[in-house]
Amino acid sequence: MAASQHLKIVIVGGVAGGATAAARARRANANAEITIVEKGPAVSFANCGLPYHIGGEIEQREKLLVATKELFWNRFRIRVCTGHLAESIDTKNQTVTGVTESGDTFELPYDKLILSTGSEPIRPDFCNVQAANLFQLWTLDDMDRIIAYLKSAECKTATVVGAGFVGLEVVEQLHRLGLKVTLIERLPQVLGPLDSEMAKLVQEELDKKQVTVCLSASVSKLQVEQGRVSQVVLDNGSSQATDLVIVGAGVRPRTELATRAGLAIGKTGGLVVNEYCQTSEPNIYAVGDMIEYHHGTLNQNMRIPLAGPANRSGRVAGSHAACGKSPKMPSVQGTSIVRVFDVAAGTTGLNERLCKANNIPYACATIQAPHHASYFPGAKNLTLKLIYSPEDGRVLGAQAVGAEGVDKRLDVVATLLNFSGTVDDLAGLDLAYAPPFGSAKDPLHMAAFVAQNDLADYPTLASVDIALDGYQVVDVRNASEIEKLPLPGAVKIPVDDISSKWESLDPDAPTIVVCHSGKRAHIAASWLLGKGFKEVRNLNGGMSIRRLTNP
Amino acid sequence: MAASQHLKIVIVGGVAGGATAAARARRANANAEITIVEKGPAVSFANCGLPYHIGGEIEQREKLLVATKELFWNRFRIRVCTGHLAESIDTKNQTVTGVTESGDTFELPYDKLILSTGSEPIRPDFCNVQAANLFQLWTLDDMDRIIAYLKSAECKTATVVGAGFVGLEVVEQLHRLGLKVTLIERLPQVLGPLDSEMAKLVQEELDKKQVTVCLSASVSKLQVEQGRVSQVVLDNGSSQATDLVIVGAGVRPRTELATRAGLAIGKTGGLVVNEYCQTSEPNIYAVGDMIEYHHGTLNQNMRIPLAGPANRSGRVAGSHAACGKSPKMPSVQGTSIVRVFDVAAGTTGLNERLCKANNIPYACATIQAPHHASYFPGAKNLTLKLIYSPEDGRVLGAQAVGAEGVDKRLDVVATLLNFSGTVDDLAGLDLAYAPPFGSAKDPLHMAAFVAQNDLADYPTLASVDIALDGYQVVDVRNASEIEKLPLPGAVKIPVDDISSKWESLDPDAPTIVVCHSGKRAHIAASWLLGKGFKEVRNLNGGMSIRRLTNP
Repeated sequence: MAASQHLKIVIVGGVAGGATAAARARRANANAEITIVEKGPAVSFANCGLPYHIGGEIEQREKLLVATKELFWNRFRIRVCTGHLAESIDTKNQTVTGVTESGDTFELPYDKLILSTGSEPIRPDFCNVQAANLFQLWTLDDMDRIIAYLKSAECKTATVVGAGFVGLEVVEQLHRLGLKVTLIERLPQVLGPLDSEMAKLVQEELDKKQVTVCLSASVSKLQVEQGRVSQVVLDNGSSQATDLVIVGAGVRPRTELATRAGLAIGKTGGLVVNEYCQTSEPNIYAVGDMIEYHHGTLNQNMRIPLAGPANRSGRVAGSHAACGKSPKMPSVQGTSIVRVFDVAAGTTGLNERLCKANNIPYACATIQAPHHASYFPGAKNLTLKLIYSPEDGRVLGAQAVGAEGVDKRLDVVATLLNFSGTVDDLAGLDLAYAPPFGSAKDPLHMAAFVAQNDLADYPTLASVDIALDGYQVVDVRNASEIEKLPLPGAVKIPVDDISSKWESLDPDAPTIVVCHSGKRAHIAASWLLGKGFKEVRNLNGGMSIRRLTNP
Repeated sequence: MAASQHLKIVIVGGVAGGATAAARARRANANAEITIVEKGPAVSFANCGLPYHIGGEIEQREKLLVATKELFWNRFRIRVCTGHLAESIDTKNQTVTGVTESGDTFELPYDKLILSTGSEPIRPDFCNVQAANLFQLWTLDDMDRIIAYLKSAECKTATVVGAGFVGLEVVEQLHRLGLKVTLIERLPQVLGPLDSEMAKLVQEELDKKQVTVCLSASVSKLQVEQGRVSQVVLDNGSSQATDLVIVGAGVRPRTELATRAGLAIGKTGGLVVNEYCQTSEPNIYAVGDMIEYHHGTLNQNMRIPLAGPANRSGRVAGSHAACGKSPKMPSVQGTSIVRVFDVAAGTTGLNERLCKANNIPYACATIQAPHHASYFPGAKNLTLKLIYSPEDGRVLGAQAVGAEGVDKRLDVVATLLNFSGTVDDLAGLDLAYAPPFGSAKDPLHMAAFVAQNDLADYPTLASVDIALDGYQVVDVRNASEIEKLPLPGAVKIPVDDISSKWESLDPDAPTIVVCHSGKRAHIAASWLLGKGFKEVRNLNGGMSIRRLTNP
């Protein structure tokens, strides 16, 4: 580029980081020629809001339109070409060519190219039928078609395939519209990013709302009658009538354009980028769902199709492309959250599955605690699972489910993960406390205390799903709790009697102490250990969690 | 101590960490003889809940009684002696002596002593009158007497002296009871821990609820008639009739017992303790409001009479006294929060006053942003002020005021402070996002972006209270915004016109760009900088904050 010319920046794709990259590029370079080419009709829209407009929780469609073509021109002098599908990149001559909606071809020269082609929903084989009531939900257009169908046809039942984030949000919104909803999921649990016992809490919420949940179930066929899916046939042979099918089977990165240009693809199928979001071709950047991010806790690259990292990568790429400088792309932690009716559920860092798959030693501490001071009105129970290294106490991840305060606890742990913090760090955090907002001992502290006790053999925890045969099991709950959820074979000693009745127990027998959530069991187990019992453990999370693992 | 004997642990004071220390000591040592001597009638109660029972928000008094004498004995084999006032410590012979409610003396031998004598409300001179309607609020007994008076006397007006945490909570609860409340504060602002412009947002909430707020006002005299305060006389000579006076003028540590025992007192008046909460006498520990904590960000010791650190110090001291081991006492960050009617307000780390007093260079970035995705129903504005080092970008503190999500943002920053994180770290955090819980660019990210831009001269920020004379001031708000809150002398160019009208401005004049919150001004200021303007700054926080500083 001659010094007299202005830098030409072309961005392919407005959503998932592209629009952010463009705006950021402008702020970093007032003179660059910046162009966004976008295949769809809108340069930028709020993908995450789509399910909520279907159910009417977000009433106005225009709220989803984040920024218009006109705004980009007026405010940023950024040219937006919608209806422009980029088809190939000539990396040598630095041009992008493609075709417009009206069938014309276009060719754009670039000095710096930023790819933001995002991801697209996976379309399972069973979707290869023509049916007016079969949908996926990824674009404004998808949303509009679903809403139009709901208005035109009389739907009483709906089937949602896939119990991930979008699937669950769609279930809630269809339920809001009064439909009887069935949710079909291939895995033996809803919400794959959570460990199964935590996911079960979400499933209980779905049950409470009379959503029919079919787990470990695959759709083998959609039966079509008169141009509509009439029956969903599962691989176990059962079938079910339906008025509407929405498939949310995950997404895959849209990397065709990049692949054709010879850009490097990583092990997990996303584009490989460096810390400034440069691809294997340094003048070409890539951002958002199509790339691999560095997962900080896992210390590996992986795809995470979420808005937060997409946005951050857009900022990095936009700035670096425009002026050659930018803070580095931060690591991600896989933090995510979803609202499912009256509860929120989310995760950050590693779950048990990721630890196992990567041979990372881990331990778990699970607690139940009110989200703010228990004596203050409105306290709601939160279940928090902390995953940590048994070797050095480093926090590896957390999951939380509850009606209030889930996002806050995840955000604190996500912040801690950023600094490779330990359970001691977590236990010592100086968090904001007043009765309406938390507790002097926040659920985060409680979980950290449990982990600290475990690591210090003070006493250690028994895994939530441990087989209790062969143990001296001491149930320290009160009679009414035991009646509601019995634990056969346990010796019953309410916690307040342990100091007077402990001598009736066998100090040589390997012992597991159990209560509702693990708090009283910790007190009793410490007592027994202090009295010389040889091996005493506290059942992690108590019966409140165990009931979720041994139905 | 002979090996055959059990360790004798005596705890003086149940509240503010003492009860926690006792319970923790038991778990660390099943055989120790543990005794709590407490001068009051209850071993432990929820101090933080007292204001809320006065107004009836916490309905049942028994909810405030955290743990009873019986529970301590049955569950922990901890002996609780209420109505026992400890008067002296014989450090040589290791005994505590004192007097009981009934006038008997007692003497208790100890191997380890844990002091938790807490703090007591400061009683200003003007309180030295006999009046049945004059109260402070620190104990259950104080609360009971206030409630009894409110029931017996017909109160229509109330005066609260002191606009700190407790004062503000009391104001809200008296207002809830239908009283017309006047709040008197010595400082020129409410809520001293916040910087003045942030405190003003809280004051606006008080104004909205028709609370009369008198700032920079000291009580010179309480006029008493027929055994009741009838008039509150201020030092400016004005006076005001009142039916009830509650004074919340701060607290001071109760260190008399410790001082008499010759234990070291720190510069700020609290007991000096080491990382295991041992005083200058290693067998004597101290916890809670009476000690000095290490402030992590300030790297100095200071007193912080709050429940969170009290609790943590109790755990450390209890464990260490009982078995010689404990994690170290973590640093505090001075994190605190209060609900004032419909808003929450809080702080963590350093404020401007602390930075100035300690000659710490600092810069501020203040933003306004919705607490969750703006397109999702129920989004409420949050004002967030980030304080950071202009030298290395290290985050020094944060303050937030808003209807929702204040606690979450403070907790994230408190966590960041624990690791000496920077604004780059904050900008890169992978926080939990779904439309009901946050934004892909959370307010925390937005504040960090503003700070990053400032640090990178991209462009820098102008201080919220900068004098604008002599600057070329460019107001990029739209006409209706300007009409509501004019900025005389500014050149008006709406942000979307800046790219077409910038040439009408003087590129050599030092320029300050202004909008409502600073977001659009950033865009316009970047544009001007990019076009070669010599000195361009963005007014931090825009008019939404400036209006709070130049009334």
